[in-house]
Amino acid sequence: MKENKISIIGGDLRIVKLIEILSHDGYSVFTYGLEKAENLKKDEKIVGDLSLEEVIASSRIIIAPIPFSSNGIQINTPFSDEKIAIEELISQIKNKIFIAGSIKLEIKEKLEQNGNMVIDLMQREELAVLNTVSTAEGAIQIAIEQTARTIHGSKVLVMGFGRVGKILAHMLEGIGANVYCEARKNTDIAWIKAYGYQAIYLNELEKHLDKFDVIINTIPSMILDEKRLDRLKEDCLIIDLASNPGGVDMKQAKQKGIKVIWALSLPGKVAPITSAEFIKETLYNIFQEVS
Amino acid sequence: MKENKISIIGGDLRIVKLIEILSHDGYSVFTYGLEKAENLKKDEKIVGDLSLEEVIASSRIIIAPIPFSSNGIQINTPFSDEKIAIEELISQIKNKIFIAGSIKLEIKEKLEQNGNMVIDLMQREELAVLNTVSTAEGAIQIAIEQTARTIHGSKVLVMGFGRVGKILAHMLEGIGANVYCEARKNTDIAWIKAYGYQAIYLNELEKHLDKFDVIINTIPSMILDEKRLDRLKEDCLIIDLASNPGGVDMKQAKQKGIKVIWALSLPGKVAPITSAEFIKETLYNIFQEVS
Amino acid sequence: MKENKISIIGGDLRIVKLIEILSHDGYSVFTYGLEKAENLKKDEKIVGDLSLEEVIASSRIIIAPIPFSSNGIQINTPFSDEKIAIEELISQIKNKIFIAGSIKLEIKEKLEQNGNMVIDLMQREELAVLNTVSTAEGAIQIAIEQTARTIHGSKVLVMGFGRVGKILAHMLEGIGANVYCEARKNTDIAWIKAYGYQAIYLNELEKHLDKFDVIINTIPSMILDEKRLDRLKEDCLIIDLASNPGGVDMKQAKQKGIKVIWALSLPGKVAPITSAEFIKETLYNIFQEVS
Amino acid sequence: MKENKISIIGGDLRIVKLIEILSHDGYSVFTYGLEKAENLKKDEKIVGDLSLEEVIASSRIIIAPIPFSSNGIQINTPFSDEKIAIEELISQIKNKIFIAGSIKLEIKEKLEQNGNMVIDLMQREELAVLNTVSTAEGAIQIAIEQTARTIHGSKVLVMGFGRVGKILAHMLEGIGANVYCEARKNTDIAWIKAYGYQAIYLNELEKHLDKFDVIINTIPSMILDEKRLDRLKEDCLIIDLASNPGGVDMKQAKQKGIKVIWALSLPGKVAPITSAEFIKETLYNIFQEVS
Repeated sequence: MKENKISIIGGDLRIVKLIEILSHDGYSVFTYGLEKAENLKKDEKIVGDLSLEEVIASSRIIIAPIPFSSNGIQINTPFSDEKIAIEELISQIKNKIFIAGSIKLEIKEKLEQNGNMVIDLMQREELAVLNTVSTAEGAIQIAIEQTARTIHGSKVLVMGFGRVGKILAHMLEGIGANVYCEARKNTDIAWIKAYGYQAIYLNELEKHLDKFDVIINTIPSMILDEKRLDRLKEDCLIIDLASNPGGVDMKQAKQKGIKVIWALSLPGKVAPITSAEFIKETLYNIFQEVS
Repeated sequence: MKENKISIIGGDLRIVKLIEILSHDGYSVFTYGLEKAENLKKDEKIVGDLSLEEVIASSRIIIAPIPFSSNGIQINTPFSDEKIAIEELISQIKNKIFIAGSIKLEIKEKLEQNGNMVIDLMQREELAVLNTVSTAEGAIQIAIEQTARTIHGSKVLVMGFGRVGKILAHMLEGIGANVYCEARKNTDIAWIKAYGYQAIYLNELEKHLDKFDVIINTIPSMILDEKRLDRLKEDCLIIDLASNPGGVDMKQAKQKGIKVIWALSLPGKVAPITSAEFIKETLYNIFQEVS
Repeated sequence: MKENKISIIGGDLRIVKLIEILSHDGYSVFTYGLEKAENLKKDEKIVGDLSLEEVIASSRIIIAPIPFSSNGIQINTPFSDEKIAIEELISQIKNKIFIAGSIKLEIKEKLEQNGNMVIDLMQREELAVLNTVSTAEGAIQIAIEQTARTIHGSKVLVMGFGRVGKILAHMLEGIGANVYCEARKNTDIAWIKAYGYQAIYLNELEKHLDKFDVIINTIPSMILDEKRLDRLKEDCLIIDLASNPGGVDMKQAKQKGIKVIWALSLPGKVAPITSAEFIKETLYNIFQEVS
Repeated sequence: MKENKISIIGGDLRIVKLIEILSHDGYSVFTYGLEKAENLKKDEKIVGDLSLEEVIASSRIIIAPIPFSSNGIQINTPFSDEKIAIEELISQIKNKIFIAGSIKLEIKEKLEQNGNMVIDLMQREELAVLNTVSTAEGAIQIAIEQTARTIHGSKVLVMGFGRVGKILAHMLEGIGANVYCEARKNTDIAWIKAYGYQAIYLNELEKHLDKFDVIINTIPSMILDEKRLDRLKEDCLIIDLASNPGGVDMKQAKQKGIKVIWALSLPGKVAPITSAEFIKETLYNIFQEVS
């Protein structure tokens, strides 16, 4: 894709950082709904004083918030006092490449009916992989902070050997934890052994539970139920990275006095600049594909 | 699977080691075509003096060589003076669980027609994953041996980020190489970055080729052709782990004086005991599945 | 040393955890100045209701706080409402093995005049080495928390390759940082290279300073003066682990808007249980030596 | 030191590679006793056709072999047909900076009496540290080659936590071994734990000996005597890196059928180019110091 103009409407700190990177890489960036991002005003290649219509008209690529909306009515604009209604916005966008995060199906369909190509960043595999780095690091920070032991030398269980599990185990090993990984499939167990961690089949989890100092869950399914919680050491810390409903019976954990930290959306919180760089890489991949 | 008897016919050093492990784990093992494996004679639980018919009749599970046959006529029996014809063997096997490696389709079909369940170990994903460890270690041994530099501090390119590529990169990093990984897909590039290696897209490989001290190829497709070979440092070592036809233009490499080591089937050569243990784990998974 | 009785007077959370460990290992522990440590009351082998005189009389080994005193008048007793004057305490201790942390010379001499063997835990080399683990982990927590990037992929400079520098570099590498280490001596530079980090001589530091995302200082001498601070990236984070006066011109850093975290005594804060275990190991070494 | 001329007399492949590097770095190099090193003839900045007297006269710095002599009569000149007697050589060298490896005391004194500054490369701490990398890698190659298991997952004991022990443990860990380190001093044990390896005190070695797949010794003292050899697994591999007399009772090991590889001088064998680079770094440090 040869174009060098990008329009950006709303978004959080990651989007602000993304705009700085895009401008630095030579793109002309037209912004709306970001007037409180002071840093952007210092850069002449970033245009911030146009109307919404003008910003939309300025380029073929429209980048909207990640996630697009939290309340289903307006898009997310934490760097603006303005409320931008979803319906009003999308009715104006036609024949564009529209990029945002977590776009609802009905919105996607409406945009496509108006001739737009719609790309949801949250469904890009490479971005999900890159984000595991920030998630893993955030989890490690929590583990250091919330325990009275060093992670080095602690027994840490990672539940689930998917994307986050793989990178988390790799980093935990790197700072000296004794890493155990739980999985169900023979192939995952083989990978866990090939990487040098202790492998535990889900159906044998019970008999291992009393040895862990920290358990980090990545599986969005209720694994740590009442019965399993009963097996934990009393000062075992649980960090749950799984999205709703999580993998821990929170009510039971509370009753038993087990500390559980439910940590979601770590990348944006832990490392907004790195997240912006990962979004940029994904964008450039998208630009290559649609060219 | 409750049975504790296993019949084993032919096979190499890995099979001999496997028999020792199975016996140690409590199985009664009946062997044929392994009479020159001296160690097996010391163990009373291993029965080695029966006829082929008797061995087949002794248990429901038949384990045959890995690979099953090299010449398509007889099965592989390096620990025996006896030649066992494939046709003759398989005509006797009925209603068994038959396990071997690299079984040709027509043989598999004949066995199935006789009521056997046929399992090819070489098509088990978990064994392929576990074997990457031995392959990676063998490649590292070659790299240390065949270069005049330490791998520590050398620039090493791993071509392909599949099973072997992943574990190889992990180990190379572990002994201090500067690891570069080549891939084509955006997702693989993201994984390479998430693990902390230098990522190189195949279409940008050319401009990086002159910096590597060692290149290890895992892709069974001609990547290092004449044009790319021209870009290499004169003392760059190439190790090709890809099965036929390999990924290197061997003729051109020879003409240019570039050292290429084509290293196949490393697990059995580098680490027969570990290979036997991996086969055992895979067997036990199989036993669970067919129970 | 055959004795199995230990008297412990005052001390912080590490001492409380140490008492639990000692009791668990079979020692009878007599405590004074720790009445607010609730956990200790649950264990019958820990005696907490004696007078100071009785506690001193109960065993040949006296363990006092680490550090012994913060104000030079009373010993540190955060788990007690009682103030224990140094003079009063040490006048009562005779012919004992007296163990504490950071004991002033004059106090040491007085104790020795009363026939005590005096051992300062803070001067035990093995404890200093073990504590580097907690210090390094604490520094990594701060680095993750206080930057908008992931440490993975960041350029991190460790200044000084002494005890803390060595373990810090090791762990930073483990979570994927690009690790640079600064040193003055040729031998240290050789070690840095042998471990696989980027080595920078102090006298060449200047020309590298503009590339770091994080700088962690372990040298108690003013290295980051005004001139060097001017070379840093504007969002570079400095973590100073060096004890007074530290290695950073704090006033200049503040004026230039550079974020500096001065982090002292991390082991007790980050990982009191691990610290207690390290103290225990050191104690047992001492017991061996004095037996 | 501003001079840019270096005279080099005799030496092995490392010296040949060193000459190439020095020439590449801009030095004029005058050689004698290296006429069979073909590569050197291609480089015009390397002068190879002078007499011994002329070579000595050509520069202030004389580099002689590493080690200087193997038989005490002539210097080592594997790349020459000429025999150069030590006495004859050193009588001609006056008021120079004389650099070689393993120089006997009496030779050193004679050279100093003639006004030479004498530097023994083998006594340079930084070179010893750098060389640990090659030694460790060579040991790992042997371990992969001489065992029927992968090092990954094997239990490997490193005896001695000095220079080689430290880097060897680091690399073994890196390729996935279960690393145990033996030491005597509390401080070394603390370092071993801080780096995350299993620590074993020498006086508790006996009870651990039956679990190791590989033992690598770095201590030049008879640790593995008959009694300890009796405790080993029958297929345990011993690699002895300690210089004469080594740390293994070779006769007893042979009788018991235990495989011992006595591997000396690995750096020059495993990685002559890297060794040459390490010598170069050390030379440049020397040049700085004598300037």
